[in-house]
Amino acid sequence: MNGAECLLRTLLAGGVDTCFMNPGTSEMQFVSALDRVPAMRGVLCLFESVCAGAADGYARMLHRPAATLLHLGPGLGNAISNLHNARKARSPVVNIVGQHSTQHLRYDAPLTADIESIARSVSGWVKSVEHAAGMGRDASAAVRAACTPPGQVASLIVPADFSWSDAGDPAPPLPVPARAVPDAARIRCAAAALRSGEPAALLLGGSALLGGALHAAGQIAAATRARVFAGRYLARVECAGGRFTPPRLPYFPEPAEAALAGLKHLILIESPPPISFFGYPGRRSYLAPDDCAVHTLAALDEDGAAALAALARECTAESYDPPPAAPAAPELPHGAPLTPETIGRALAVLMPPHTIISEEAVSSGEAILRQLAPAAAFDHLPVTGGSIGQGLPVALGAAVACPGRKVIALEADGSGMYSLQALWTMARERLDVVTIIMANRRYRILDIEMQRTGAGAPGPAADAMLDLHRPELDWIKLAEGQGVEAARAQTADEFIQKFRYAVERSGPYLIEAVL
Amino acid sequence: MNGAECLLRTLLAGGVDTCFMNPGTSEMQFVSALDRVPAMRGVLCLFESVCAGAADGYARMLHRPAATLLHLGPGLGNAISNLHNARKARSPVVNIVGQHSTQHLRYDAPLTADIESIARSVSGWVKSVEHAAGMGRDASAAVRAACTPPGQVASLIVPADFSWSDAGDPAPPLPVPARAVPDAARIRCAAAALRSGEPAALLLGGSALLGGALHAAGQIAAATRARVFAGRYLARVECAGGRFTPPRLPYFPEPAEAALAGLKHLILIESPPPISFFGYPGRRSYLAPDDCAVHTLAALDEDGAAALAALARECTAESYDPPPAAPAAPELPHGAPLTPETIGRALAVLMPPHTIISEEAVSSGEAILRQLAPAAAFDHLPVTGGSIGQGLPVALGAAVACPGRKVIALEADGSGMYSLQALWTMARERLDVVTIIMANRRYRILDIEMQRTGAGAPGPAADAMLDLHRPELDWIKLAEGQGVEAARAQTADEFIQKFRYAVERSGPYLIEAVL
Repeated sequence: MNGAECLLRTLLAGGVDTCFMNPGTSEMQFVSALDRVPAMRGVLCLFESVCAGAADGYARMLHRPAATLLHLGPGLGNAISNLHNARKARSPVVNIVGQHSTQHLRYDAPLTADIESIARSVSGWVKSVEHAAGMGRDASAAVRAACTPPGQVASLIVPADFSWSDAGDPAPPLPVPARAVPDAARIRCAAAALRSGEPAALLLGGSALLGGALHAAGQIAAATRARVFAGRYLARVECAGGRFTPPRLPYFPEPAEAALAGLKHLILIESPPPISFFGYPGRRSYLAPDDCAVHTLAALDEDGAAALAALARECTAESYDPPPAAPAAPELPHGAPLTPETIGRALAVLMPPHTIISEEAVSSGEAILRQLAPAAAFDHLPVTGGSIGQGLPVALGAAVACPGRKVIALEADGSGMYSLQALWTMARERLDVVTIIMANRRYRILDIEMQRTGAGAPGPAADAMLDLHRPELDWIKLAEGQGVEAARAQTADEFIQKFRYAVERSGPYLIEAVL
Repeated sequence: MNGAECLLRTLLAGGVDTCFMNPGTSEMQFVSALDRVPAMRGVLCLFESVCAGAADGYARMLHRPAATLLHLGPGLGNAISNLHNARKARSPVVNIVGQHSTQHLRYDAPLTADIESIARSVSGWVKSVEHAAGMGRDASAAVRAACTPPGQVASLIVPADFSWSDAGDPAPPLPVPARAVPDAARIRCAAAALRSGEPAALLLGGSALLGGALHAAGQIAAATRARVFAGRYLARVECAGGRFTPPRLPYFPEPAEAALAGLKHLILIESPPPISFFGYPGRRSYLAPDDCAVHTLAALDEDGAAALAALARECTAESYDPPPAAPAAPELPHGAPLTPETIGRALAVLMPPHTIISEEAVSSGEAILRQLAPAAAFDHLPVTGGSIGQGLPVALGAAVACPGRKVIALEADGSGMYSLQALWTMARERLDVVTIIMANRRYRILDIEMQRTGAGAPGPAADAMLDLHRPELDWIKLAEGQGVEAARAQTADEFIQKFRYAVERSGPYLIEAVL
């Protein structure tokens, strides 16, 4: 079989059965092979960063990779921002980039670019296929690399001529290394810190924010009075539904430092040490106190859930169930103005169980999420790498990964514009995504950041660079223009009505929430 | 003054007075300084590839750089595709990329990425500012680098703390090296080839496609019977209006080889040797005959116009004016169906003189342009690097560069979606751009490329990856959603009516031409 078919069959053998693609000439054999390998689902995206973000969202939900298919260096360039986010989420992604045919590469053709260098900036593994017969082996290695803990972007660069040449049989899957379980000494060390009587906290990331691990963290907190925090830049957090829900570290350094103030021990579970998002004049970036000892219970690529379970056993004489959280029953905000808070209250009541929230509402997400403690169980997919344009594509990928679950994209008007093409794919694939655009007609977060970086209040020229009023974006038209039904809400009651409608139906829908 | 103000004032001193920007936290000081340096025009774009493409279009028209302002590695990533096109157009661009503050860089913060590596893939010059006092010097060096023939992307990476620290005075502009004029020996060598009696042709690129150089090429052709071709991937071509207009080399290799068949001498003027856009099975990429001698009259960074003028003097005993082209007077295609041909005929009649056409209508551009020979003088900005999403941003940049001239973006529905955010900036800046979307609801070019790469006709699964019907994009809504007035045309008469309206008014307008 030719190289393209060998590639597809090898991916399938390795469990990769979904490909988010925006192909060009050099990828035509791959596209053609979709008809011979029908188990591979091709999902067309109209812009490459949508492919990359969708693969990220897919991987966050399923813990296994989807593939992308991108066209040469510029196609990869367009995907860099969301591959960056996938890298920071430690999402497994098999990132396939077409290359010119090898005989064509010696010429500086218009589309020739240094694909490997561009790929390296976001990938844990990069390989150019060197001959057609190596296609299966390299594809199999790419799947293994993507899945190797903690998960990474594996970029496979595929020259066109190896796709159209004979490549022999597909390669079998390669064994993926398991996450290492931290040894007993590290468990004892963490337990000793917790028993020291000094103020201590756990900082959770990665798989420590899912299911049983959260439960174990709750047990430890209840038994030892340790505080527990979730890191900020997380792939996925299982929230609410009566589960133990640690607070996330705040975004700005002052409240984050305040949250960690006085700690003598900080125990990291699949989390990097706490640092601020940006550096600011006269402020340090590291957020924990200088005299706080940092203990790594589980490194990023280790099994934090197992470590927490062991630590819980070490810290509690008997199996201990923390009392279920009993937040006040939520109420719909009838008659209220439309604000992030009232949107959150409406979601808390109306979201069906097991909703997935892809959140990139930069200046209003926090206020919404704060209202969701009494909601039914939901999954939160936060910002990871901070590269704008993540929200809609990650929602798209999560919806492809989890049919039957409602997905909400909490997006903003500024950030939504970076990858609005995701709406078209939601319409084509009839994905069950409700996009909520928080329309404040401004890069609101930059008002704050301008002050924080010492630049003061914006004058008229600076203000124009933060302002999205002239002209106003009309998200109803932007959605309908891509085949997505949409409506505008200007009061809490309008929002409740539109959101209820969106929840009761299936398929993509967009609400422009005018703030 | 602080580093940001020093940077702006140095850019201004170097003649850079326009900045296409999508700033974030690390660029707030730059934005703030716009109020203190009002001669610098900030143009907000809602996506970074729009900034890059606009800077490319601006430079193609004015032969001097605009600046971009991009936010960290991911912002640069989003600009890569159009910076790639700018690189291939040899457009001077001062590409400013914000960086974290230096004390923050030691931490692997969410937005940290390898900016220099990403920048290098599209830049001829890359420099990270190393201390605040170096800001002016480095900014001045960036301007010089961008302007150094033949023009290139110069990427200046600016840590946030050097923007907010004292940086001293702005730096004066640095002298830019002039284009070298080819020496007499090369002129004589080319003249000898033309006089050899063997079939010979000129292949023009760069400045050889403007004004006087075209005239000289016409003189040479008339005097020596040499054939003249324009290369294919060109920054700008001055067309029609009675000017000598050489045919462009065809896109596909077969007709391009046929055009060059039999030649014994090919004389390059600011053009690379002719190669095909893609490699195909069983076809070579180099397009000239093997026994054709290739003479470089002017290299990419040399003065092709001066070389052509000298060659014209060498080849013609006296000053010789070729007879003006006298194409048939164009007629409006009343009563005809809407096709690329009839659109071209309508443009030929209705375009005002000195219109600028930014063209990225991948599968229909050629048929339109063929109709424009009898049009009034216009400038053609073709595809250069082939990275999709160039058409709208380049039109935007050209309109900023040339107020008072009508700009047409000849765009397609597939390619238009890569950077549709450009429409918003056209509306905000009230730019006089008429966008014509060739809506064939398909990645039409890929039907051909799939056959050409040996993959045959698409089956249903492959077909779905080329199809843009489900759902149909509604470009009226996509334009109106961004503040741009728009209308649909389904017949030639409807197109004539809408285009006439668009020409008679000023400001952005979009016509969805349904093919």
